Amino acid sequence: MSDRAFEVLETKERVIEDNDRVAAEVRKELKKNKTFLINLMASPGAGKTTTLCRTINALKDRYKIGVMEADVDDDIDAQRVTEAGAKAIQLHTGGSCHMDADMTMRGLEGLGLEGLDIVFLENVGNLVCPAEFDVGANKRVVILSVPEGDDKPLKYPLMFTVGDVLLINKFDTCEIFDFSLDQVKANVAPLNPKMQVLPLSAKTGDGFDQWIEWLVAAVEAERSAE
Amino acid sequence: MSDRAFEVLETKERVIEDNDRVAAEVRKELKKNKTFLINLMASPGAGKTTTLCRTINALKDRYKIGVMEADVDDDIDAQRVTEAGAKAIQLHTGGSCHMDADMTMRGLEGLGLEGLDIVFLENVGNLVCPAEFDVGANKRVVILSVPEGDDKPLKYPLMFTVGDVLLINKFDTCEIFDFSLDQVKANVAPLNPKMQVLPLSAKTGDGFDQWIEWLVAAVEAERSAE
Repeated sequence: MSDRAFEVLETKERVIEDNDRVAAEVRKELKKNKTFLINLMASPGAGKTTTLCRTINALKDRYKIGVMEADVDDDIDAQRVTEAGAKAIQLHTGGSCHMDADMTMRGLEGLGLEGLDIVFLENVGNLVCPAEFDVGANKRVVILSVPEGDDKPLKYPLMFTVGDVLLINKFDTCEIFDFSLDQVKANVAPLNPKMQVLPLSAKTGDGFDQWIEWLVAAVEAERSAE
Repeated sequence: MSDRAFEVLETKERVIEDNDRVAAEVRKELKKNKTFLINLMASPGAGKTTTLCRTINALKDRYKIGVMEADVDDDIDAQRVTEAGAKAIQLHTGGSCHMDADMTMRGLEGLGLEGLDIVFLENVGNLVCPAEFDVGANKRVVILSVPEGDDKPLKYPLMFTVGDVLLINKFDTCEIFDFSLDQVKANVAPLNPKMQVLPLSAKTGDGFDQWIEWLVAAVEAERSAE
């Protein structure tokens, strides 16, 4: 028997013809349980897990938080978010570079929604395919880290089109990497004029107030709509 | 009419049952033209294009160099490598997150191999799917940048299993990101004991001598085998 504090679930992609139909089922399930689902997407190494751990720390006294860690392999992230105070499940995607609605549904069933106010799906590190699949989330959060460059919205436009908010992580390294916040905003605006762009540093905590405020407002707006 | 110095080719993925068969055809075509093909793979923002530009500069007096820039969208990279002195073609993958052998063959046909000693395929920024497809390249070069973290081989093991050499880019930022070269080597070794790990900085040029030496040796070994 494993002594892990979280389950590991194999969620290899199945061929499901109608992803949007399953996404609607996910939404129904979330509504029934009063759970808010966030699809967190970014490149490998953008700082998804570090951002998540700090976010859990900031909110764990207010909300019960669950995390689904989707990875091709490895369980490190589930371990980290468990230590940060979330209920976690590790999903192994069996080589798949993204999560779809069916995989998400199986993940939510494995995690167990009862009593959870917020669930984060930490998607596979990838700026391409995860953007193509509606997993049934209430909000899509995209992280772009400063070292990746301010031109990324031009190169991976769909990701920046579908996202609700863009967190610019590792913002403390702006000067080293000649990253311009104005430039990234100018690159995002034509794709997604409504996307908010929030600079922060998951390492130092700078900028987190703004992000936490955005997140709480989104969760509470959904609750008061129920 | 466009005033671009390079062609843009739409290479949307077709369903080809036998990727390995097409990869073998690519190899035959390369051999016939005495062209050495490198499949360059990395995350978004790892510095593929900057590394490529500096590599072209270092080698353009010795070899005729071609570049296939595979992107979901955008032509910036083809522009940059053209300015660096390579013959370039921009491939738009039509949403696909990787190149396969068929797409590579069409790219090579569009580029035109005649007279080219080395062709670089700059794959779509992605650590997952590009690793799954043999495109017929002579060597697979993987770039991991320091800000992504030294744990990435654990999370994207296939990429680090199939690569011939691993360039650790942005090595000048090691201290800022608590990146350990020893740790990344320890993470790579069980997956791929033969993989060379070469730290460098595409921005400053540090470490390039070693990489250029590796590359010239690989190209010349192929030539002397003919």
